[in-house]
Amino acid sequence: MSAVRGFASDNYAGVLPELLEAIAAANTGHAVSYGGDDWTARVGELFRSHFGDDARAALVFNGTGANVVALQGLCRPYEACICASTAHLNVDECGAPERVAGLKLLAVDTPDGKLTPELVQPRLVRFGDEHAVQPKVISITQSTELGTLYTPDEIAALADQAHSHGMLLHVDGARLSNAAVALGVPLRAITTDVGADAVSFGGTKNGTMLGEAVVFLREGLGGDVLFLRKQSMQLASKMRFIAAQFEALLTDDLWRRPAAHANAMATRLAGAVGQIADVEITQEVQANAVFAILPAAATASLQERWKFYVWDENSGEVRWMCSWDTTEEDVDAFAADVREAVA
Amino acid sequence: MSAVRGFASDNYAGVLPELLEAIAAANTGHAVSYGGDDWTARVGELFRSHFGDDARAALVFNGTGANVVALQGLCRPYEACICASTAHLNVDECGAPERVAGLKLLAVDTPDGKLTPELVQPRLVRFGDEHAVQPKVISITQSTELGTLYTPDEIAALADQAHSHGMLLHVDGARLSNAAVALGVPLRAITTDVGADAVSFGGTKNGTMLGEAVVFLREGLGGDVLFLRKQSMQLASKMRFIAAQFEALLTDDLWRRPAAHANAMATRLAGAVGQIADVEITQEVQANAVFAILPAAATASLQERWKFYVWDENSGEVRWMCSWDTTEEDVDAFAADVREAVA
Amino acid sequence: MSAVRGFASDNYAGVLPELLEAIAAANTGHAVSYGGDDWTARVGELFRSHFGDDARAALVFNGTGANVVALQGLCRPYEACICASTAHLNVDECGAPERVAGLKLLAVDTPDGKLTPELVQPRLVRFGDEHAVQPKVISITQSTELGTLYTPDEIAALADQAHSHGMLLHVDGARLSNAAVALGVPLRAITTDVGADAVSFGGTKNGTMLGEAVVFLREGLGGDVLFLRKQSMQLASKMRFIAAQFEALLTDDLWRRPAAHANAMATRLAGAVGQIADVEITQEVQANAVFAILPAAATASLQERWKFYVWDENSGEVRWMCSWDTTEEDVDAFAADVREAVA
Amino acid sequence: MSAVRGFASDNYAGVLPELLEAIAAANTGHAVSYGGDDWTARVGELFRSHFGDDARAALVFNGTGANVVALQGLCRPYEACICASTAHLNVDECGAPERVAGLKLLAVDTPDGKLTPELVQPRLVRFGDEHAVQPKVISITQSTELGTLYTPDEIAALADQAHSHGMLLHVDGARLSNAAVALGVPLRAITTDVGADAVSFGGTKNGTMLGEAVVFLREGLGGDVLFLRKQSMQLASKMRFIAAQFEALLTDDLWRRPAAHANAMATRLAGAVGQIADVEITQEVQANAVFAILPAAATASLQERWKFYVWDENSGEVRWMCSWDTTEEDVDAFAADVREAVA
Repeated sequence: MSAVRGFASDNYAGVLPELLEAIAAANTGHAVSYGGDDWTARVGELFRSHFGDDARAALVFNGTGANVVALQGLCRPYEACICASTAHLNVDECGAPERVAGLKLLAVDTPDGKLTPELVQPRLVRFGDEHAVQPKVISITQSTELGTLYTPDEIAALADQAHSHGMLLHVDGARLSNAAVALGVPLRAITTDVGADAVSFGGTKNGTMLGEAVVFLREGLGGDVLFLRKQSMQLASKMRFIAAQFEALLTDDLWRRPAAHANAMATRLAGAVGQIADVEITQEVQANAVFAILPAAATASLQERWKFYVWDENSGEVRWMCSWDTTEEDVDAFAADVREAVA
Repeated sequence: MSAVRGFASDNYAGVLPELLEAIAAANTGHAVSYGGDDWTARVGELFRSHFGDDARAALVFNGTGANVVALQGLCRPYEACICASTAHLNVDECGAPERVAGLKLLAVDTPDGKLTPELVQPRLVRFGDEHAVQPKVISITQSTELGTLYTPDEIAALADQAHSHGMLLHVDGARLSNAAVALGVPLRAITTDVGADAVSFGGTKNGTMLGEAVVFLREGLGGDVLFLRKQSMQLASKMRFIAAQFEALLTDDLWRRPAAHANAMATRLAGAVGQIADVEITQEVQANAVFAILPAAATASLQERWKFYVWDENSGEVRWMCSWDTTEEDVDAFAADVREAVA
Repeated sequence: MSAVRGFASDNYAGVLPELLEAIAAANTGHAVSYGGDDWTARVGELFRSHFGDDARAALVFNGTGANVVALQGLCRPYEACICASTAHLNVDECGAPERVAGLKLLAVDTPDGKLTPELVQPRLVRFGDEHAVQPKVISITQSTELGTLYTPDEIAALADQAHSHGMLLHVDGARLSNAAVALGVPLRAITTDVGADAVSFGGTKNGTMLGEAVVFLREGLGGDVLFLRKQSMQLASKMRFIAAQFEALLTDDLWRRPAAHANAMATRLAGAVGQIADVEITQEVQANAVFAILPAAATASLQERWKFYVWDENSGEVRWMCSWDTTEEDVDAFAADVREAVA
Repeated sequence: MSAVRGFASDNYAGVLPELLEAIAAANTGHAVSYGGDDWTARVGELFRSHFGDDARAALVFNGTGANVVALQGLCRPYEACICASTAHLNVDECGAPERVAGLKLLAVDTPDGKLTPELVQPRLVRFGDEHAVQPKVISITQSTELGTLYTPDEIAALADQAHSHGMLLHVDGARLSNAAVALGVPLRAITTDVGADAVSFGGTKNGTMLGEAVVFLREGLGGDVLFLRKQSMQLASKMRFIAAQFEALLTDDLWRRPAAHANAMATRLAGAVGQIADVEITQEVQANAVFAILPAAATASLQERWKFYVWDENSGEVRWMCSWDTTEEDVDAFAADVREAVA
């Protein structure tokens, strides 16, 4: 059963062929370890080309690592991070931000996974009061854990709010590529150019075997990221094999293709199941996720044949993720099964 | 310069071809993420076959992660780990054991990187005294950071000592394969069978792209390793690609070949340079490392052509590591250059 | 201005005279430090008499220390504590639970500072899922930070809920004395006898100079509290001076008098200001706190003469605390000023 | 037995009468909590008068708290503190520096508890190497845990060494008063004036009930100490009672008297026992401690009547501490018993 196709997560997919080729091509002789290699040097340059001249990227193993290293780079331990209550940081990292970084998260309920200045505002209190953690970072996820998107203007508004309080804006971009493709903009248009200070740039969900990047976007930030990365146990010795994948992804905008495909499959899926009675699509489908509520019996029946997660044990909401390797046949067969299951 | 060959570290080498093939072969369709895949299941069985029926293995990203997850599984935060002052844990993990696990290390000076019951004994004090961290784990490195080996009897003596104080024995086995090959024994003969309770089993230095394993060897240990691994940011989503490498390494004892080769190259190197006047080999060459003191000018000259590290800035001792891909030509050319440099 | 009387906090009051006398009486010759003294031994017995034979008390410096030591005694680092979003743990400890204990708090919004099984239930999910912190403790505050009370039955219901999920119930009893007095019950009737597993028993707000107690109530809990206390920097060397205060408080139920007085003063205050138009009392006044909303201009005017805190910067809600030394004259004068300020 | 007199620790003594009076005098009406009171304000001024205009003091509960708050104020988490292996930080804080601050200590063996530039030098390596913690602080204890003293010149030499590497000098001054008295200098002559950057200034061992101070000595240091103190659970609510004690101690140099007395008693004790055959005084007696080796049987016999600690379980070395309340009669009676026990 473990190899069955499904919509459980975009990390059930394997490695994009071009990236596997890049890995194989990098397997040539000796290379300086821990990032002293040529691939890593070239990737640093590519990150600057995508995120601006001040971008300082450090490759890490996984998304939790990227987020936690980024927050450590931005915060003293009594400083806090405001995030949506649905943020991966808050619900899917097993307390790593609290445990490893020692940071408190200030979680904000949202209807759609998106923070807004209005939602954030009530948490911007008690500055200077030593009894309270001090808000220092607003962290948004783009695209969100609910498959929704921030427009560039929405991000700019949050960045302005953060900066006006001496705070910083972090973007958890595990699916930043999906967002940029959906919005039809370059990566920097939803990060550097609209005021973000740091980004966790995702690779895994867009086709790498593993590997994410912490990218500090402004001068004066991230100066000690190499130490934080090492101490946070996110430093790969044979770094070239992570770097080679990012080099491939970031060259000639290869990153756009898998993201665009995953997004298109989600749109197709939403189109197909959205018309079914008893299936309620609960979030606007803007990237590569479809959220829906359907009868519990239908969910149980579908899960016998397809992998996917119940998102909310209480409401019965499910999550269907599309990936770079989801096929039209997958979507159509699944949609047909959904139709049958709810019938 | 970054691709130049050398003896800097066994992680300057790339991926063993069989392991790269295993990765490619695993890149087929969907697999359950986070270790719910078939490769991981098979690897769990292979670890039991090598380390005993009670072995519980969890794959992690790197050696620091393996050590820190293992120690968290063995200790409460006020419990401490006794290790050699040269241990990787103590000097090369940027304080991750202290920072992530919150643990104090009790470092013991040794002449050769090896703990002995006599060296450990003075640290076995103040049990029950709340002002002092409580010794709970003895951690040894096999083969050591100085390229030396523990015999099975030496390990058994330390395990007995630990157990007689209600303590546990951990083996940092980043190079356990080199040790087992050098000693001509199976992996369990220097771990499970001589009383070790947990091992960090290395992959990277023996040919994987990345990936190590935390292996708890006794019933009742490691029951919460999955949570500790995730919280410590050591959980890979596309786990199959790490598992596939270990599956290959542990099948038909493939792990022996690269380790044996690296060891043989170190022996060859020691043989070649050991006869040179002004080169003093400082540690017995038992695995894949050669430590030597040579004139500072010679070191500087050699480092213009070959990568290697000065191990001790104060004494001028250098470390030369051999890897699975070190060739006889590498060794001979380097030895010739050493001879010339010191002349 | 700093010595002005007011209603800012019950810790603006000084030391109950009997407790200062107990301190002075303890200042006689030598005593074993760190709790090896006779006062501490007697206090341990007194805690057992109040909380049951299995009670194991450890005296600490302050309330944050008590809570964080208690939670460390109850949780592994990936386990989480469910608490009201208004809990002191969550909002007034500057992230100490996250930083020192490494624990994530799962904050639940409540109308009155009180958790209920219904409010807790949605957080009892994802057991066994390594991506999520595992709920292990429900922490309630008695009396709450909003001056409200749990009945014994309400606590029992939460304890049952916790235990049915393999979890534990912790009571932050910084004002447990106020609660017991208000309910007219002994301390164990709202802790041990209704299923609580550990309590932070407050002294400071009931008249000690400083000093709180972590009390584990069940066999098998708190076995390592002495180490956790020391490592958490909560171990006093001249412990007798904290112990002497608790000895006095817990002897002949002295603790009841200051708590009863503070409660009575809050009732008097609520009675006086509750009839004033434009003053809305926002929480039921059950212990020693009065919460109210009044016009911002009135608050500003009052704060020129009286010390108190604005509780909610957004709504303008204020908090007025009564203490063991609040006088009827204080209350009447303040109420008159409130009436004048809102007029 | 717990109240027996002895030489176990200077914290077996009680509270200096003047300080108990200061506490009682402070118990008058309301005072702003958490350090917003007048006593704390005056103490801040007194610290500036003793340590210089840039001194910023924060009162904490205990010595471990002072050290750990100080180090957090001086270090990022991957930065390390060099200290003597006998330092309280290293051996008597149950791993609090590692656990709470997340810092690694680099312990240096010394013959007499004193660091020297020569002993420190070998640890000043690997700057910029992300695999190693980065030395940032040299911490010395004055007077040392072995009862020895640093001269002002010796401290200046270590401060120079630290500063020349971009590092800082911290003084654990749990017994700074004893040192200043013994050297016949003001407090700043062995701290601020010789280059120290921060000091943990002790109160408890010199007569307070409890309470120590973290003092940052240079502009630009300690700006966030209030947050670090709170998060480290070292913030007293009724601060005036700690502040009142320091106000008394620091006024008219009251601190000199108890320290001078304790020192004199140690000198008297050393004089009396030093002449006894079979008693070897092992450290120069410069402050209020006497270290000696005597036959194990004698130690056992003495401990039936007097409280003191065996310092080194392996060598049989014992520690005898004198305190502000040690009497000449105590010393003479004890010395006579020593003579008898070894006979």
